[in-house]
Amino acid sequence: MSFKTVHDLETPSVLIDLDRMERNIAVMQARCNELGIQFRPHIKTHKIPDIARRQIEAGAVGIACQKVSEAEVFAAAGFKDIQIPYNILGRRKTRRLAALAQQADVTVTVDSKPVIDGIAEAAQEVGSTISMMVELVSLGERTGTTPAAALTLARHITATDNLRFAGLMIYPSDAAIRPRLLETLELLKSAGIAIETVSGGGSGAIRDAHLLPELTELRVGTCIFWDWNCVAADYTGFDNCAMQVRATVVSANEPSRVILDSGSKAIHSETIDGQFGYIVEYPNARLHKVNEEHGYVDCSVCPRPPLVGEIVHIIPVHTCVVTNLHNQLYGLRGDEIEIVWDVAARGMVW
Amino acid sequence: MSFKTVHDLETPSVLIDLDRMERNIAVMQARCNELGIQFRPHIKTHKIPDIARRQIEAGAVGIACQKVSEAEVFAAAGFKDIQIPYNILGRRKTRRLAALAQQADVTVTVDSKPVIDGIAEAAQEVGSTISMMVELVSLGERTGTTPAAALTLARHITATDNLRFAGLMIYPSDAAIRPRLLETLELLKSAGIAIETVSGGGSGAIRDAHLLPELTELRVGTCIFWDWNCVAADYTGFDNCAMQVRATVVSANEPSRVILDSGSKAIHSETIDGQFGYIVEYPNARLHKVNEEHGYVDCSVCPRPPLVGEIVHIIPVHTCVVTNLHNQLYGLRGDEIEIVWDVAARGMVW
Repeated sequence: MSFKTVHDLETPSVLIDLDRMERNIAVMQARCNELGIQFRPHIKTHKIPDIARRQIEAGAVGIACQKVSEAEVFAAAGFKDIQIPYNILGRRKTRRLAALAQQADVTVTVDSKPVIDGIAEAAQEVGSTISMMVELVSLGERTGTTPAAALTLARHITATDNLRFAGLMIYPSDAAIRPRLLETLELLKSAGIAIETVSGGGSGAIRDAHLLPELTELRVGTCIFWDWNCVAADYTGFDNCAMQVRATVVSANEPSRVILDSGSKAIHSETIDGQFGYIVEYPNARLHKVNEEHGYVDCSVCPRPPLVGEIVHIIPVHTCVVTNLHNQLYGLRGDEIEIVWDVAARGMVW
Repeated sequence: MSFKTVHDLETPSVLIDLDRMERNIAVMQARCNELGIQFRPHIKTHKIPDIARRQIEAGAVGIACQKVSEAEVFAAAGFKDIQIPYNILGRRKTRRLAALAQQADVTVTVDSKPVIDGIAEAAQEVGSTISMMVELVSLGERTGTTPAAALTLARHITATDNLRFAGLMIYPSDAAIRPRLLETLELLKSAGIAIETVSGGGSGAIRDAHLLPELTELRVGTCIFWDWNCVAADYTGFDNCAMQVRATVVSANEPSRVILDSGSKAIHSETIDGQFGYIVEYPNARLHKVNEEHGYVDCSVCPRPPLVGEIVHIIPVHTCVVTNLHNQLYGLRGDEIEIVWDVAARGMVW
């Protein structure tokens, strides 16, 4: 079945406004160019080689992805500079990673010795070389380690065959981390260990990037589509949000109980202020609950509540998790469907 | 690559304990048999024809699913009695539904006239017959209508070509709805409209089923695997939870900051008491935050926090949404992988 215009699509469908997406690509690259840092799009947001190719054509240095299996999809599509900012553990995964490093330049991040040793063993068996950045723990308190431990790990990497020490990684790279970053850089300098890359990242990373002049690159995913999270954090405006989920009102027997055909299987379960998405046509409505196939909308305060069968458009709270729920994204120019993308790296859990 | 035992699997992987699953199938069917009502498994929880076949072999009357596209997958696998308890709207969907009704007995639910008319038009065009139940709104305040409106809709269905009035549907079917159900049954009886099915459903529906003797069938999905939601609601115990997500500890630099390779892409974003899953090996740990590929676990109060590389098992908050994130489920007998299922109806959004 072929789809010519948006009206041919059933719902829920994920629409991408190509004009907005192209503008987002250009704006992000221009900002990185101004700051003199490299841009490395994180493909987790779109998971589509064709979109990453457009980002590279605009000037991006390479890609970041989060899984070996995602990296394999992009390597097969011809990408040669692939960063996986993740602690990769497990014999099968490290072997696949080492094999991947025979086809592409592969960089990973680490925050402990067991992770380094597991990857080194696989690289030595396969005979490939893997670049490693050490992750500094940020105020986000996720993965990462302290400046002193980072020095120990960097020394261990430089002393290990088939590994290359590539620098430091931070997520998210807000200005508050600078003292810790400077301390680490000083420790590494004193130890005579050269630094090539300081990689920052996070949806809002561009905003603080000028306050972290040590950064050499930024990894950002969401800036391709943006989302309500990013609008709420004041990183962008709704006018730049390129992804919308097209939904149908399937029940509207009371204004307080309007039900959409889009629930946690279409828009995921993340929330802002108890809401699961922003409805473009009904900005005062509250999408306050989801089941897998139902979105519950309270339209009590809307001047005219929607009718059964009406189409509405939802700006998701978080685009990355929405992409991962769908097999296709539909690229629109106005109402016309210009491209249908398969989400090639969707569902890659390994 | 072939997987013989659980140790061959990378993480995250979704494991199904076959002994528990088989016991869950037998128990649910036995309870429905005792009550003298039919059991109709909702396949949204597993999305796998082979598992539905086992439920039918145990005595289930047919299946329920939530989408035309899911129904198509199951019809192609040979299922002949398919209920879609959903308001199906949109020309393409209703045409597909009408075509499906040429291959299988298809029943849908409705709660408004536009939904009835759209389906009727498609059935008339295709020349098939579609059964319809009218949904009564429950305390869950989702879809559904009032007793008086239900009578009007039932009359409209019986008066429309290519439609068959099949009865009433309720979700969830807890005892509180009985006055509304009895009122509707009385209205229908007075109007001379015969009722064949009163279909109840919801994870905990079996518990109240004896208090609703008017029910003729129960639609339940989660009872095949159960989950933390169902344990928290006291519908079952952890010992009956057949699904676990196998995860790896990828960072453990501090007990309060233990990070798993399983986040919202592996275990979804639903919570109980601010927690995203129950970790079997560390019952006192709190899985308090997820990103797509990271689960944040606070192990401060655990006697021995986990080490990097350690494998843990997570009982999900909600199994249905987890199934929909994965391409395969692994059926285990002890440590041995007895079956690898493709999640055939995964990601069916239309």
